[in-house]
Amino acid sequence: MAGDTSIPSDEVQLLECNLDDMTAEAMAFAMDRLLSAGALDVWFTPIYMKKNRPGTMLSVLCRIEDGPALCTLLLQETTTLGVRWQSLARQLAERRMDEVMTPWGLVRRKLKLLGGRVVSAKPEYEDCALLAREHGLPLDQVVDAARRAKPVVGDGEARDDLT
Amino acid sequence: MAGDTSIPSDEVQLLECNLDDMTAEAMAFAMDRLLSAGALDVWFTPIYMKKNRPGTMLSVLCRIEDGPALCTLLLQETTTLGVRWQSLARQLAERRMDEVMTPWGLVRRKLKLLGGRVVSAKPEYEDCALLAREHGLPLDQVVDAARRAKPVVGDGEARDDLT
Amino acid sequence: MAGDTSIPSDEVQLLECNLDDMTAEAMAFAMDRLLSAGALDVWFTPIYMKKNRPGTMLSVLCRIEDGPALCTLLLQETTTLGVRWQSLARQLAERRMDEVMTPWGLVRRKLKLLGGRVVSAKPEYEDCALLAREHGLPLDQVVDAARRAKPVVGDGEARDDLT
Amino acid sequence: MAGDTSIPSDEVQLLECNLDDMTAEAMAFAMDRLLSAGALDVWFTPIYMKKNRPGTMLSVLCRIEDGPALCTLLLQETTTLGVRWQSLARQLAERRMDEVMTPWGLVRRKLKLLGGRVVSAKPEYEDCALLAREHGLPLDQVVDAARRAKPVVGDGEARDDLT
Amino acid sequence: MAGDTSIPSDEVQLLECNLDDMTAEAMAFAMDRLLSAGALDVWFTPIYMKKNRPGTMLSVLCRIEDGPALCTLLLQETTTLGVRWQSLARQLAERRMDEVMTPWGLVRRKLKLLGGRVVSAKPEYEDCALLAREHGLPLDQVVDAARRAKPVVGDGEARDDLT
Amino acid sequence: MAGDTSIPSDEVQLLECNLDDMTAEAMAFAMDRLLSAGALDVWFTPIYMKKNRPGTMLSVLCRIEDGPALCTLLLQETTTLGVRWQSLARQLAERRMDEVMTPWGLVRRKLKLLGGRVVSAKPEYEDCALLAREHGLPLDQVVDAARRAKPVVGDGEARDDLT
Repeated sequence: MAGDTSIPSDEVQLLECNLDDMTAEAMAFAMDRLLSAGALDVWFTPIYMKKNRPGTMLSVLCRIEDGPALCTLLLQETTTLGVRWQSLARQLAERRMDEVMTPWGLVRRKLKLLGGRVVSAKPEYEDCALLAREHGLPLDQVVDAARRAKPVVGDGEARDDLT
Repeated sequence: MAGDTSIPSDEVQLLECNLDDMTAEAMAFAMDRLLSAGALDVWFTPIYMKKNRPGTMLSVLCRIEDGPALCTLLLQETTTLGVRWQSLARQLAERRMDEVMTPWGLVRRKLKLLGGRVVSAKPEYEDCALLAREHGLPLDQVVDAARRAKPVVGDGEARDDLT
Repeated sequence: MAGDTSIPSDEVQLLECNLDDMTAEAMAFAMDRLLSAGALDVWFTPIYMKKNRPGTMLSVLCRIEDGPALCTLLLQETTTLGVRWQSLARQLAERRMDEVMTPWGLVRRKLKLLGGRVVSAKPEYEDCALLAREHGLPLDQVVDAARRAKPVVGDGEARDDLT
Repeated sequence: MAGDTSIPSDEVQLLECNLDDMTAEAMAFAMDRLLSAGALDVWFTPIYMKKNRPGTMLSVLCRIEDGPALCTLLLQETTTLGVRWQSLARQLAERRMDEVMTPWGLVRRKLKLLGGRVVSAKPEYEDCALLAREHGLPLDQVVDAARRAKPVVGDGEARDDLT
Repeated sequence: MAGDTSIPSDEVQLLECNLDDMTAEAMAFAMDRLLSAGALDVWFTPIYMKKNRPGTMLSVLCRIEDGPALCTLLLQETTTLGVRWQSLARQLAERRMDEVMTPWGLVRRKLKLLGGRVVSAKPEYEDCALLAREHGLPLDQVVDAARRAKPVVGDGEARDDLT
Repeated sequence: MAGDTSIPSDEVQLLECNLDDMTAEAMAFAMDRLLSAGALDVWFTPIYMKKNRPGTMLSVLCRIEDGPALCTLLLQETTTLGVRWQSLARQLAERRMDEVMTPWGLVRRKLKLLGGRVVSAKPEYEDCALLAREHGLPLDQVVDAARRAKPVVGDGEARDDLT
């Protein structure tokens, strides 16, 4: 399948700035606000800046149309004086959701498809975490059960498109 | 103000290379030299390279016109055999300086403006560090005093455009 | 089970040194040599050292009786002038191996036991990687199959002590 | 004040393990559970493990008496087969809380005392974050106001023991 | 020589994705496979992702023509649902190999040339590591000997174009 | 030589604290002050703290007798409310200095001895950096020349105790 150009793609924007005069607490707050404002993803990279400063690079991935607003938000919520930005192409796997019944309750799973074929079925973290907390179980046990379970579709019949 | 496209912008160049056969000492020297040669910023990112090598990525941000010279300098001062480069757009906050009087002496502050409004007034690190060293004070105490102080303008009258 | 002091424990030695005048290539070589000489584990931590140096801390975990030899090896194979060392207590899960048959061949699994109960069965990475390479499969598919498979014991009968 | 041995101290336990066969998602879950179970602090350090693995060290700081339970929890909630532990001395600043009124509401502050003298007054992050979210303000603006405000004590009179 | 635009250059592709639901073991396997499939370089960067996850960014540098196949491989071998990609210019030093005789055997060296002049001669790591292992020597000693040795050319005569 | 217990050793103190409410700028200042106050080494480790905070661990290595003063300094110069400390054994290589003449001037070298034998001769970074800056040379070229040069002893005669 290598080189298959039929994989769907889009374009996203990457905004970045280096921070050396902001606390980790305040950076975490900025991450929250950026995610609430529609960022697709936000992350920090530890970097070594000049003058011995253990700095942090803040990266924001967003839709092209959200770029200007998030760029302004970055200037407001962080101490940076300049935000670098660029457009990137992005190749995407197709996704579909299914749902499985575990001994402790329902868990949604994110199916990843390549070339129309399901290549993995990842139990939703939030669902598993909730059940693990409620039943005092190790997360791993719930995830594992959800991975093995047969999907429950609409009318209750089971399906399994995962080889 | 989100999405405000009136924020000024320019274009900069980002040069990068991965290093696995150079000492940390020599990398710090290269950083110095790149900064002396006009780089706007230089930083290191710890990366995990193939064959178990705890490598380092060196990044240089510079003006478009300084790109070729700094790229050559990177090839001379580091062990890399190839430098990657790209142009990035950059959105900038407006800046202005003011000056405040603290109990221990004058401190310059960098004012950051968005849409013509001062949103922060950051005491210059070098000024605060100097006073903290001279007077044996915690840095924090000087920075804090400089943050609260009223700016001293030309003829001595005080101004405060920071809400 | 929290607070259960019946979990077996031993004592190990932790050797550490900071490196700023050695290449990543040479550090990877030292890691190899330390592991060959009997170290239980060796790892690198990226650290920010004085004078802007993107340094690396090298950590070696070993049996108490191997401490002196590995300490000397560290002094020989790295540029450090001093090795810090300390003894640490270590609490251990009990381990047992089993073996499962996947569609592509046998895979050993490391069983982890707490309080006599199997809490996880981890397919050996090397076995899975070998099969994945031989059959051109994603690693994940082999690991997943090995996780679900029933163990094959001596005489061929299946067992499953994993709830 | 250097060398002042009148600073109060206690003893804490540090538990650590290296993880290379666990997802970041599951590690975050383990952090939550460890904090809920009484850990004083939990953090991750990126480390470079053998065989090219971008591993993670998990560290747990806890009271001596919570050590055994948290050690067992680590063995249950992570994939590690061994937890290293040691006792550490800890020197503590004295703390006191006060409260200040900002234009947007009350904010608690953590006062740090050395030798009986208040050396800093840090506005509680959660209080500031709440007000910043409610009023759509940059976090920095709320923190700054709380830092400058005069404390409000019991009967409403203001005090300021911060030089 | 600064600003010398006569340095040869080409264009390469950089593929990147963020991983938070994959083990370090599996990431190392993906690195291997990407390198086997023709990637020029592959590396990991530790990043701090949302929800407290100690994630990892995977970067792949490759020839433009290998981009699509490696992008598909990334989607197959990792848990990512989206791969970002961009083209980067790359400025290259000229390279030439020579060979030197050390007391323990032949070692190849990679010569780096800028403007037609040899600026460094780096002994090949694999050759040095092999000799160090065979003769039980510190790597450093072999590298050092190889650095100082005179190159052996075809007919045995020595040459030295390294000032 | 492995296991040689005749290597000299001493005992040192390691002080550590986690920082999430302090800027990188201020941390660099604290590093300076700790080094000026007699710390043997100071370094930062990037850590992932709770609530998504890209924190930093500050480590200070010092002589036993300097522990209390540096601990107090840490409490004064950083925002931490608690400093962890422990004593570590340290195994040391013997050191001796020599001096070599390069084409650009004298360079001191730190000789490292194990079991009475010189195992490496490392040119002092500061000396090499100075000459490289004065003569506009790559650092590497000066270091390399200093490594190969014969030592100049007292009365001018050359010696070479490096095999």
